[in-house]
Amino acid sequence: MQDLTIQVRAFAEERDWQQFHTPKNLAMALAGEVGELLAEFQWLTPEQAATVMSDPEAGARVRAEIGDVMIYLTRLADVLGIDLAEAALTKLAEVAVRYPVDQAKGSATKR
Amino acid sequence: MQDLTIQVRAFAEERDWQQFHTPKNLAMALAGEVGELLAEFQWLTPEQAATVMSDPEAGARVRAEIGDVMIYLTRLADVLGIDLAEAALTKLAEVAVRYPVDQAKGSATKR
Amino acid sequence: MQDLTIQVRAFAEERDWQQFHTPKNLAMALAGEVGELLAEFQWLTPEQAATVMSDPEAGARVRAEIGDVMIYLTRLADVLGIDLAEAALTKLAEVAVRYPVDQAKGSATKR
Amino acid sequence: MQDLTIQVRAFAEERDWQQFHTPKNLAMALAGEVGELLAEFQWLTPEQAATVMSDPEAGARVRAEIGDVMIYLTRLADVLGIDLAEAALTKLAEVAVRYPVDQAKGSATKR
Repeated sequence: MQDLTIQVRAFAEERDWQQFHTPKNLAMALAGEVGELLAEFQWLTPEQAATVMSDPEAGARVRAEIGDVMIYLTRLADVLGIDLAEAALTKLAEVAVRYPVDQAKGSATKR
Repeated sequence: MQDLTIQVRAFAEERDWQQFHTPKNLAMALAGEVGELLAEFQWLTPEQAATVMSDPEAGARVRAEIGDVMIYLTRLADVLGIDLAEAALTKLAEVAVRYPVDQAKGSATKR
Repeated sequence: MQDLTIQVRAFAEERDWQQFHTPKNLAMALAGEVGELLAEFQWLTPEQAATVMSDPEAGARVRAEIGDVMIYLTRLADVLGIDLAEAALTKLAEVAVRYPVDQAKGSATKR
Repeated sequence: MQDLTIQVRAFAEERDWQQFHTPKNLAMALAGEVGELLAEFQWLTPEQAATVMSDPEAGARVRAEIGDVMIYLTRLADVLGIDLAEAALTKLAEVAVRYPVDQAKGSATKR
């Protein structure tokens, strides 16, 4: 994880791309990549989507899009000085309180 | 990273939410959270966006949204059987070939 | 349609919001609203999604989100000097050529 | 507007694409197209973004992406039985009450 952060940062710095990697631009790029990921799933039935990784071509595209999303998320967090795993674990602890197991069980009211 | 994957999975399984956590649904939820992240930046000037983390309230909201995005990305990758860090590193190696340092330096033609 | 463009423009100008309504900011706001729209559908089964408008509360939320998306799309097109209906009709004519009826019939290869 | 709705509907029906045009799928496709629109703006400075339409190539791409977004928004609204212009005007009237001119003037607290 830290390794990924460092590699993505080096990748950007070697190319003098820090000037483009502002928080607004990176947030837009992240959303653009999520859009490409959605496009892989949009016309699939739920059943087709569940087995997409067993299709070599579609599976490779999904993996590549997931990789792109992760790259920009890592870079955005780095630029903002946020520890990605820590932010996720902190938030997970908060939602665990908000959705206690006994009340949330099997309900999609929220998620 | 693996720890996060395991915790997010446990969180979902304790609540019987596997039934909702299909690839299509998780991709939509990921996009929804990215939308909330964009909303934190949309009216800021580039200068305000660059220092957003020094504002306690806005900074906390950005951190929480980044956490949400990471939670859903982790969960989606887990459901698809994709190693998130590996997918990002593989993709990074590919774009490094596509954008050689000497040609890409300082240019935003692509990113 | 023109009426909507004029009303949205007046709404922004009365509030001196032209300064915030740059193409980048409006594109981000548009994406943010689409994210809220996705959130209305993300945990619904295909069957629940198909009848969402017959649920008074969920239906009202979906209608409001669709309205928000249309407001920002109208405003973005206006700021860019693009005629929204014309842009859609032009694009529709192009995709009609790209997906001839006899070849595209019943196939989701693309859409 | 109604003309566009009818043309987009005819386009889908001629190709037997109603089966793919569920609310969930169309919301995903809409988000995917908005992602492509964001990608046109993500690396531009605010100044470059403001004059993007005077660049023939980039301008044509932006117009085409705006067209795609409008096509899917029109189709989604049609499938849900929502009048797009009416939904936008109703929502605009609501936000006008929420952001009175004298209080909202020049402030980006919300938008």
